[in-house]
Order: sequence, then structure tokens, then C-alpha cells
Amino acid sequence: MEERDIYSDNGSLEERIEALLSQKDYAALKEILVSMNAADIYSLFEELKESKIPLLFRLLPKVLAAEVFVEMEPDAQAMLIQGFSDNELKEVLDELYLDDAVDIVEEMPANVVKRILQNTDADTRNMINEILKYPDDSAGSIMTIEYVSLRLNMTVGEAIKRIRRTGIDKETIYTCYVTDTSRFLHGAISIKTLLLAEEDEYIKDIMDTNYVSVHTHEDKEDVANKFNKYDLLAIPVVDDENRLVGIVTFDDAIDVMQDEATEDIKKMAAIIPSDKSYFKTTVFETWKARIPWLLLLMVSATFTGMIITSFEDALAAYTVLTAYIPMLMDTGGNSGGQASVTVIRALSLDEIDFGDIFKVIWKEARVAVFCGITLGVCNFAKLLVFDRVSFVVALVVCITLVVTVLIAKVIGCTLPILAKKIGFDPAVMASPFITTIVDAISLLVYFKVASMMLHI
Amino acid sequence: MEERDIYSDNGSLEERIEALLSQKDYAALKEILVSMNAADIYSLFEELKESKIPLLFRLLPKVLAAEVFVEMEPDAQAMLIQGFSDNELKEVLDELYLDDAVDIVEEMPANVVKRILQNTDADTRNMINEILKYPDDSAGSIMTIEYVSLRLNMTVGEAIKRIRRTGIDKETIYTCYVTDTSRFLHGAISIKTLLLAEEDEYIKDIMDTNYVSVHTHEDKEDVANKFNKYDLLAIPVVDDENRLVGIVTFDDAIDVMQDEATEDIKKMAAIIPSDKSYFKTTVFETWKARIPWLLLLMVSATFTGMIITSFEDALAAYTVLTAYIPMLMDTGGNSGGQASVTVIRALSLDEIDFGDIFKVIWKEARVAVFCGITLGVCNFAKLLVFDRVSFVVALVVCITLVVTVLIAKVIGCTLPILAKKIGFDPAVMASPFITTIVDAISLLVYFKVASMMLHI
Repeated sequence: MEERDIYSDNGSLEERIEALLSQKDYAALKEILVSMNAADIYSLFEELKESKIPLLFRLLPKVLAAEVFVEMEPDAQAMLIQGFSDNELKEVLDELYLDDAVDIVEEMPANVVKRILQNTDADTRNMINEILKYPDDSAGSIMTIEYVSLRLNMTVGEAIKRIRRTGIDKETIYTCYVTDTSRFLHGAISIKTLLLAEEDEYIKDIMDTNYVSVHTHEDKEDVANKFNKYDLLAIPVVDDENRLVGIVTFDDAIDVMQDEATEDIKKMAAIIPSDKSYFKTTVFETWKARIPWLLLLMVSATFTGMIITSFEDALAAYTVLTAYIPMLMDTGGNSGGQASVTVIRALSLDEIDFGDIFKVIWKEARVAVFCGITLGVCNFAKLLVFDRVSFVVALVVCITLVVTVLIAKVIGCTLPILAKKIGFDPAVMASPFITTIVDAISLLVYFKVASMMLHI
Repeated sequence: MEERDIYSDNGSLEERIEALLSQKDYAALKEILVSMNAADIYSLFEELKESKIPLLFRLLPKVLAAEVFVEMEPDAQAMLIQGFSDNELKEVLDELYLDDAVDIVEEMPANVVKRILQNTDADTRNMINEILKYPDDSAGSIMTIEYVSLRLNMTVGEAIKRIRRTGIDKETIYTCYVTDTSRFLHGAISIKTLLLAEEDEYIKDIMDTNYVSVHTHEDKEDVANKFNKYDLLAIPVVDDENRLVGIVTFDDAIDVMQDEATEDIKKMAAIIPSDKSYFKTTVFETWKARIPWLLLLMVSATFTGMIITSFEDALAAYTVLTAYIPMLMDTGGNSGGQASVTVIRALSLDEIDFGDIFKVIWKEARVAVFCGITLGVCNFAKLLVFDRVSFVVALVVCITLVVTVLIAKVIGCTLPILAKKIGFDPAVMASPFITTIVDAISLLVYFKVASMMLHI
């Protein structure tokens, strides 16, 4: 219940901290901080002035300090490290899990990295360097090597003793891995199975040999999808010879899932993705992330303009046609966008792959026909009743509409699948990109249909 | 390694299963099936003809059968249940965790629900009915009541004994909850802490009183965000009096995260979201999910057409202006879409809230000015060098561009925040919707600027 009192009103917590800071009542400050979660302390730090953070940080007990440190943004971490004495730095580093230490090393400027590596022991330094070698986005780059390993011939009693002895520094003890002296992975066993088994049973008899594993170079998005598919707490990472090199835990998998979803969403909106949260991204960084696609799409939209220009005479003869250009372009773009986004998400979640391409096209084509006809009929009625255009003009607009929706949906579902096949990111093939293509196509169809039916 | 042989080639696995089925070699079939994961057996079932599933399902051992059953789609579950004898149904139901049983009951047709409830004992039936009472999307609706509860005065040794005795039926034993006889929640304790503690320590001395909990009626998206923020394996669900009524486990939280991301993505693409995967959604259902927004956006796009019509004279005088309509509309739509999608995602991830609205607008406005100027300058050069339009026309187009980008970004970032404030879903305020508004605005600006500068 204490928790509620502290968290119920964030404003007053900050004010209380500020007041205690100015009164230099460090005992009271410490008491408040130790009763909080690392994530909440981090949120509190975000609200306070930067200059006050080092002081508060030093009040935290070692373990909590390390947990808070891991949560912080790279800039704030670098600032803290620069203020640390070598001793303080060593203490924080000693408490970090290896995968978190690697993450930090990856983000820090060179001079800070040097200080970090100087203040870790040789073993840890080697392991950090080992993990840094794995490509970005690979299972190896997000794994930790702090797992519990057991042997085939151990009894359950011996295994539990081993976990009691070595478990404190392991990132998870809930799934243990059974290896031999050459680190070859034979099986996995959960602590639940261990606790529910008899003390004298052998590990080899009760372990799960039918475990799911990933390769060091497997894409981290695939790793996350396996967590989701198999409801795992941790997954072993193995090399080509099925030797255990590390594990990925569910909390890292959750981060990957959320990051990948955010990345996909941004790419779909023609933004170059970054890891930073909204307010952490500066105006200049935001500009840099958004301007390339805006420029590219602006240039490609001029082709649409050129198509209009080349049909200037037809438009001059039937000025009424101009009025329906935005509606045709928007509807085409929206139809294509719907198809592409649906397919992109299904690709991300591994629901479809390249082999399904014709099945997808066939489905989208049928959906397009139904959508096109519905839109066409509604629009036809509207054109005749409200806009009072001639029957032929209404027909031209509605035929264009049906054809555009069909083409838009087929292009929208095909491009992401093809992009993935040739190694591009399918998320780029979303609404803005599709819209630009579909705009040009819908205009060409429009003027073609118009010139045939209106004899211009 | 056996795992690899089976999974390396899905095609051949199916063929082998088909062959063994036609040879009626049930022993060999069983041997293959028991060596597989539930998720993979489910994938296999998806590939096989429906009529073959009941036979294969009966070959599975009880626990595995229940795991596979939970993975299946509601239609397939209903089909299996209809073919079960009462005894078979009872066996599967006995193996299910309560939260899975509830999910199944929610999805089944009435006659199947009746059979399920007839074949569960009175206790389970009451608990199912209890959970069904919680609103959709609430923490209560996704929780399970199969948690391990401990008492304040237990020793670690007693606690481990209790877990050994009762753990088998619990969904997780990795976090245990400390309650009193009135179920009031005093603290949480992980099995890691228990295993690493001395046997004679008291639970009340080592438990975590500073746990994170959720209320039964809290939104399940908020529950998922807490898992991510605090890296939890399970979260206790409490009522108004802080009495423990259930727990939510991380696998359900992961499902919620993925579902919410998919839902947001679909809404952003003007699609009404559904829970079904791509190929599980029929053509008719896909049409139903996509047509309402297409129709609405088509109708609203006609306003844009009306604006063009009302400026027909100006366009007739300066036909060159028509050619830049698509570029201005597309760039405005893309700029607004970028801002809205970024803000929508930040809202989902709890990075910003209503109080930040002016901070967001101020940031987007600055980004818009930089983007607008970059686009304007590039476009100005292009207009003069390649298109060889007059200086004044180039100025008209580029001023419109800058103003449109500014308005688009400000509208794009404001609408999602306002939508959330008044209880609407911010994801709806994404590209398609913003595009329609921005189209109209960009044209109005265009013609206003043109009429002022070209004196038409």
C-alpha cells in the first residue's frame, strides 16, 4: 500500500524530492528512493534537473543503482559516468548483466567506452568484445551469457544446489540448460520441473530435449517471434555446432517486439526510424528522419503533375473532370494503403511468406472487386443525383474508380512481398510510396477511359 | 538435434504424416507427435485437411493435447469439441489453465459453451463465470486465478514445500504472492529469492512489499505497458480493497502488446481491426473491415473536388497551376501523416499525454518550418530550372508548400492527442484521415496565395 502513497501523485513526489534536496535531508531522500522501483526512479530522474541526478544516484544502494542506470538514456549515462570516480564506475559495472553492459558500450562515446573497459576485469572485457562482434539485429547481439548450465549426470538435488550456489549472478534461473564439457547443448529444463521432481532423479531423464533454439546470427525479430509462438521465458543461442553461447531472455524479446512495431509504423509513415522516444529526439533529428522521404515523394509526385499537364487539352474540354481528380487519387491511395499495411504486418508476424504471393493477390483482387463495386455504385448515384453530371461522365469516373481500386490493392499487396524477397524492408512499401504510384496510375486510367468514352 | 530433423523441411513432415495416416501406422505417428512442440503441432494441423485433425489429436498425450487445443482457432476448437465424447472433453478441460478455458468459452457458439460448462466441475464453472463478468479489454478478463499464494509467517522451507505440493497446476510458480486469510496482498516474492535464501528465513522478512499491481478494471494495454516498463514475469490483479483476485502472466501480456500494435497499424491505415490473422479473415470480412473508411474518405474527398470546381476560373486562366495540385496534396498528406503517426505511437507507448500538447505542437511546428523550407527551396529550383515556370508561379507554389507543411504537421500532431482526450481512439487520426483534411486546406491555401500574387 505504501507504493500507492508514493505514486498516487507524481507532482507532489517531485516537489517532495526537490524540497528534501534543498534541505539536504539525505536520510529521508534515501528512504523514499529505496522504496521505489528502478523504472519509477528513472521516471523521476527524467522530471528533475540534470544537475541533481548524480547526487540522488549516489544515494541508491548498489543493485538498485545498476538497475536505474540501465534504464537511463545514453546521454544521461555518459554524463553520470563522466562524474564517477573509477571506484564508483567499477561498482556500477560489477552489478550490470553482461547484455546490458554491452548495450551501454555500444551507445557511449569513445572516451567513455575506454573508461568502462579499463574498469572491468579482463574476463568481462573479453566477453563484451565477443558479443560486440555479432552483427546488429542478430540474436548474438542481444544475448547474455549469464545462464545456468547443468550436466546430464547431475541429480535434481545436485542441480538445485548448483543453482543456489551460482544463481545470484544469473539473469534468469527459471530455465536451465544442459550441456557437456564442450558446451554442446543437450536439453533444457525449467526450475518448475526441477522443483516438482524427486531429489534423486537424473537431469538427463527429465530434461526437455525438444527445446527451441536460435542461431547466433538469426535476426532478432525472428527471435522475438519465437518467444511469442512458443511462450518462452528464455531461448538458448547456439553456434553452428549446436554449442550453447548464450541466452536471450523474455524482457529483451519484449523490447525487440515493441521496437520492431514502432519501427514498422514509422517506416509505413515514410519516416526513417530511430530508437529514441518522442521528446528525446531533437528537432533537427526529427527533421533528418522525415525529410528524405518527403523530398523523394515530392519529386515522384511531380510525375503525377506531368500526367495532368499532358492531358491539359482533355481537361480544358471537360473541366468537370478536374473536380474528381482528388477523390480518385485519395481513394486509390487509401485502397492500396489498406492492402499494403495489412500485408506488411502479416509479414512481420510471420503469417505469410513469399510462397503465399498468389494466394494473397487472389484474395486482394476479390476484396478489391467488392470494394470497387461498392464505391462505384455509391459514387455513381452521388454523381447523378447531387453533382448532376451527365451519365457518360459519371460512368467514366466510376469505371476509373473500380479499375483504380483493383490496381491499387494488387500493387499494395504485391510490393511488400517482393521487397522482402529481394532483401528490402517491406514496411517501406506502405501508404506514402503506394500512394505516389497509384496516383499516377489512377490518372492514366482516368484520362484513358475519358478519351475513349468521351471521344476527346 | 532430433528437433532439427523434423523441422528442417516442413513439406516432407506433412507428407510423412499423410503417408503414415494412410498406412494407419498410429504408433509411428504418435512417436513423431510427442517429439514436437504444441505450437509446431498446431502449425502442422493448419496444413492438413480438417478431417484428419481429430484422429491425430486423439494420439496426443493429455497435457500436449490441451496445449495444442489452446493454440487452435475457435472454428477448429468448436469442430473438435463437437466430435468429442463427454469423457474426452472432460479430459481436455481438466488440463486447461483457467484463463485459457475462459478465452475458449468466450469464442464458442452457445451449444458448445453449454457442453463445456456441463463437463467442468462446479468450482471451475463458478470461476469461469466470475472472470467472464469483467469487461473486455480489462485486466480481469485476461487474468488467471492459478497462482501460488504464501503466508507471512511461513519459512522459506515451508514455502518451497508448498510450491512443490501445489505448483503443478499453477500457471506460474516464478512469482509467488503473500496474502492473509482475507486474501489481502502483502507482498510478492520470486522463486529466485526463495531458492537463494536460507531455509529458516521468514517470508515476511524477505518478500518484496514494493511490488507493482494492477486493478481488475485497468485497461489491458496499460497492463502490457507495465510488463514492459518493469520487466515483469507476472503481475498481481487486485480489487478495490487490495485483495488478490488473480495474476496476469507475461505470455498474455506479449499477446496483448502484439495485438494492440496490429490494431493500431490497421486503424492507421483506415481499416477496422479484427483479431483474425490474414488468411483466417474471409474476403467478405476483409471487405467489411475496409469499406466503411473508404466510403467515408471518398465522400470527404469530394469536398476537395468542390474546392477545385469553385476555382475553375483561376485554373482556366493559369492552367499550369493544375499540374502542381497532386504534388501539394501528396506532400501535405505525407507531412501530416508523419506527425500523426509519430504522435499516435508515442501515445500508445505512454511517452506523451494530454499535458504535453503544447510541447508537441511547438516541436512539430519547428520541424515543419525546417521541412517546409527544405522542400520549398528544392522545389523552387526545380520549378525554375526544369519546369521553366515564371518566378511568380514558382513563388506561389513554394509558399503554398511551406504553409501546407506547417498546417499539416500541426493538425497531424494535435488531432490524435485531442481524440484520446475525448475518449476516441487516436489511431484513427492517422494518414488517411489527416490527408483528407490537409488536401482541402492545401488547395484553399494554394488558390488564396495564387489569387493574391497572380491577381486572378
